[in-house]
Amino acid sequence: MSLGQEPPQLLKQRLFYEGRKFNFEVNRLRLPNRAEGDWECIRHPGGALAVPVTTEGDLIMVRQYRFAVLGRLLEFPAGTLESEETPIDTIRREIQEEIGYTAKTWLPMGNFPLAPGYSDEIIYAFLATDLEPIEAPPAADADEDMEVISLSPTQLENSILAGEAIDAKTIASFYLAKPYLEKLAAL
Amino acid sequence: MSLGQEPPQLLKQRLFYEGRKFNFEVNRLRLPNRAEGDWECIRHPGGALAVPVTTEGDLIMVRQYRFAVLGRLLEFPAGTLESEETPIDTIRREIQEEIGYTAKTWLPMGNFPLAPGYSDEIIYAFLATDLEPIEAPPAADADEDMEVISLSPTQLENSILAGEAIDAKTIASFYLAKPYLEKLAAL
Repeated sequence: MSLGQEPPQLLKQRLFYEGRKFNFEVNRLRLPNRAEGDWECIRHPGGALAVPVTTEGDLIMVRQYRFAVLGRLLEFPAGTLESEETPIDTIRREIQEEIGYTAKTWLPMGNFPLAPGYSDEIIYAFLATDLEPIEAPPAADADEDMEVISLSPTQLENSILAGEAIDAKTIASFYLAKPYLEKLAAL
Repeated sequence: MSLGQEPPQLLKQRLFYEGRKFNFEVNRLRLPNRAEGDWECIRHPGGALAVPVTTEGDLIMVRQYRFAVLGRLLEFPAGTLESEETPIDTIRREIQEEIGYTAKTWLPMGNFPLAPGYSDEIIYAFLATDLEPIEAPPAADADEDMEVISLSPTQLENSILAGEAIDAKTIASFYLAKPYLEKLAAL
């Protein structure tokens, strides 16, 4: 994804909240078309996500409790970039913490803005193959409530099309991965 | 998508920002697993999106300037629910404003959380067919900078897989629509 071709002019910046992972700002900006507008935004360092595929072709996912929906979502493992981390560092760390695996092979599948109306978060999506379970997984974050599940690509696609509770980044990343999954299945 | 099965216990609510379209809050919550955590969140009324398909099978989209990426994203028309609006009301209004069309036939394709880590926004996705251009389109919002473009489903899928600047809701909604687009193309 090519970014940053047309920076707006920053007229006024207001920081409303400084958080552990991201900030919330309201900025007055002038667009390239000369119109002015307020942009209320999460200022986010970015997120990294893995589509982890076992040698049998199954996907390793998490079912995670999310306040946003007062319930559990089916998601690919993902996490917020910490300071000095590159997306691949982040996701190597996160899949150990969230699903208890390492992957020998990583393929970048592209990146996309998650919620550009009010966030500058970019999701960096990777295909993770040659998985190996780790013997002593690191402890999960105390405020995360999730279970690890594995399912086939067909099962996941059926769940997406049936309207199960699955978030946008997981749906988008599955379809970025699908051409690779089909090649792997044909081997 | 089935929601609201497991509400957390709200321990403390702090409103940091009250906006025109959404608020920003930081809430202290107790999860069903008894852990406590802060949830920093955009409280959002929801968004509605259309995948508008012409009788020739082309998709009508917008290329919109987004501060988030300092440039333009290829997106399906979408908008935030206003008070008293249902998702179908919102998207009927938005496609007139954004692309200058009405649609006779609307099919709900499901809904998904956009960014559940920090937002409760749900995107309601509709397939819009039997499009008709309107003679005098309503004026666009002054702070929106967008052009209308049409492309085939194959062109859009190639753009997604090539890593063009396309956001998560647009990628996810395209793939929710794809089975319907294939049926339409076979008619």
